[in-house]
Amino acid sequence: MNTDLQDYSHKRLNILTGEWVLVSPHRAKRPWQGQNEAIANEHRPAHDPRCYLCAGNTRINGEINPDYTDVFVFTNDFAALQTDSKTFKIEDGLLKAVSEQGICKVICFSPDHSKSLADMDAKDIEKVVFAWQHEYKELAKNDLINYVQIFENKGAVMGCSNPHPHGQIWSQTSLPNEVYKKDKHQLNYYTKNNSSLLGDYLKQELIKKERIIFENDSFVVLVPFWAIWPFETMIVPKRQQSNILELKEDETLQFAEAISVLTKAYDKLFNTSFPYSSGIHQAPTDDNDYSHWHWHMSFYPPLLRSATVKKFMVGYEMFGSPQRDITAEIACNKLKELI
Amino acid sequence: MNTDLQDYSHKRLNILTGEWVLVSPHRAKRPWQGQNEAIANEHRPAHDPRCYLCAGNTRINGEINPDYTDVFVFTNDFAALQTDSKTFKIEDGLLKAVSEQGICKVICFSPDHSKSLADMDAKDIEKVVFAWQHEYKELAKNDLINYVQIFENKGAVMGCSNPHPHGQIWSQTSLPNEVYKKDKHQLNYYTKNNSSLLGDYLKQELIKKERIIFENDSFVVLVPFWAIWPFETMIVPKRQQSNILELKEDETLQFAEAISVLTKAYDKLFNTSFPYSSGIHQAPTDDNDYSHWHWHMSFYPPLLRSATVKKFMVGYEMFGSPQRDITAEIACNKLKELI
Ligand SMILES: O=P(O)(O)O[C@H]1O[C@H](CO)[C@@H](O)[C@H](O)[C@H]1O
Ligand SMILES: O=P(O)(O)O[C@H]1O[C@H](CO)[C@@H](O)[C@H](O)[C@H]1O
Repeated sequence: MNTDLQDYSHKRLNILTGEWVLVSPHRAKRPWQGQNEAIANEHRPAHDPRCYLCAGNTRINGEINPDYTDVFVFTNDFAALQTDSKTFKIEDGLLKAVSEQGICKVICFSPDHSKSLADMDAKDIEKVVFAWQHEYKELAKNDLINYVQIFENKGAVMGCSNPHPHGQIWSQTSLPNEVYKKDKHQLNYYTKNNSSLLGDYLKQELIKKERIIFENDSFVVLVPFWAIWPFETMIVPKRQQSNILELKEDETLQFAEAISVLTKAYDKLFNTSFPYSSGIHQAPTDDNDYSHWHWHMSFYPPLLRSATVKKFMVGYEMFGSPQRDITAEIACNKLKELI
Repeated sequence: MNTDLQDYSHKRLNILTGEWVLVSPHRAKRPWQGQNEAIANEHRPAHDPRCYLCAGNTRINGEINPDYTDVFVFTNDFAALQTDSKTFKIEDGLLKAVSEQGICKVICFSPDHSKSLADMDAKDIEKVVFAWQHEYKELAKNDLINYVQIFENKGAVMGCSNPHPHGQIWSQTSLPNEVYKKDKHQLNYYTKNNSSLLGDYLKQELIKKERIIFENDSFVVLVPFWAIWPFETMIVPKRQQSNILELKEDETLQFAEAISVLTKAYDKLFNTSFPYSSGIHQAPTDDNDYSHWHWHMSFYPPLLRSATVKKFMVGYEMFGSPQRDITAEIACNKLKELI
């Protein structure tokens, strides 16, 4: 391992976005006198009669949830994007705006109010993967939808407004900023090298073994070299696939296993239900050629030192570049020990 | 005013970064059941014997603060960047890293532990402006320093680890991501139009008067058309200037007045000491020609509905694009009423 990376301030390149992260390893020693997060380690019942997402309960708009038994998907009652909203375009000198249409969905991972992905077994997580595949496929058929963002906000500190384990899918007409960047960099590399950027990166990581947390036949869980969040990770399929529909039959369960192993390790790290935002970046759905895409799932968890001390991405990070103290390699070692 | 912008989902272009923000006006009606922030409205003494930043106190590294009477600047005891750290470069296939050097400083706005910028009068804020100018000038002389980021994290929710009113300056060898983007877009526009991007934008805004909160002879305070944070604002000099050293004699006080008026309005908005990260983006200091730069100071405050309910930039925002509910125009009207 290159020890300079563990000892001296440096920046690392995110090959997918083309942006840099500042790493200041020596700064991990800084004492913390700032804000502590509240921990919500309360015991949750399997069914909460006041929860909008539990089976059989009435949602805020009066609709009644079915008595679902595994995964339940419905259209967001407060969708940020809609398909019937007006289209318009403004190009008034330096003021530029374009209407945006889309479909937002909520996906309850299981009827059990108390179980996060970390508490579910791989077979049940596989049902969530099936639901993601189904939604991606169906949304892609809609001419208005050119991109499908699957994500989860877990924990109150990540803005999750309901503790019932659930994720979301926001799908829309245009490519969001982050997807646009990753599309561009993957395309550049693919055109030049005729191979997948992430696939070639994976080959390097599998030889080095410095940032790999876990692998099975089809997936690698690693801390990317350019990770921003203290315990940021990525689940990457070994075989290049542009979207999750390309998973082979036995690969869905292996993907579920990777999610299961990772989320369980996260919960052990600070002995708390570990908060994060996770998301799947995959090929747009506008029928263009996206053979340069290699889909992946990322986890951005905010906690830094304990269940109550998080990393704040604030002043310098907002105005300059993301900045981290603990290095990717140290974060990887800590997580690997918990597998 | 274009009412489509108030009624339907759309994206707006940030002309300085080239990135988009998703605006979903109808979503402002969504009820909030998520995390509430703790408010730290405790009464602070003018001098706190346990505070590392108060005059005469001993800092964590054993140094004793002088008995300063206005602004006090010192090198950060836990600097993320240093000038004597090792330089190196790694280009190992797809792993790219470069050492980064720099100088990090802390700037106490006044000896009074209890007074934020909002509580200081313009004459005292002007002393802070003088200190920023002095630091920018001195740091720029150092060959290792090519960019100087002045910023403030205010409030525990913004990761501020000490309530004593203070800001920071991180200066470094390479351009941070955000500065790189703004440099590129300002240069493109300047080369094409031979005038300042932000100056021309300002002209449009001064005619429309839909997003202007306050102006004096030399400065405009506005909610930029592409604002991300609910009550995000920008202080822009009317005259094009590439950095704060170009302020004319009477302009430093007018800049201070703009800061004073804005921060006071912020505190009134939710009747709380309003948290934010603020920062000044200005020309790099590497002796190249930066006549395309128009410096500006931005405020990114997280609060959305009250002193305890903030906007979370999480899942969709991290993986897709920033997203807001309340429009820039409504935010502007609310702030304008409080001037
Ligand atoms: O330097 P401080 O106040 O200890 O730390 C704060 O500001 C820094 C610069 O924005 C951030 O990196 C930290 O996460 C934040 O807690
Ligand atoms: O949709 P929710 O869970 O109500 O809201 C949460 O996720 C959204 C999508 O990331 C964010 O825009 C909100 O700020 C956050 O609180």
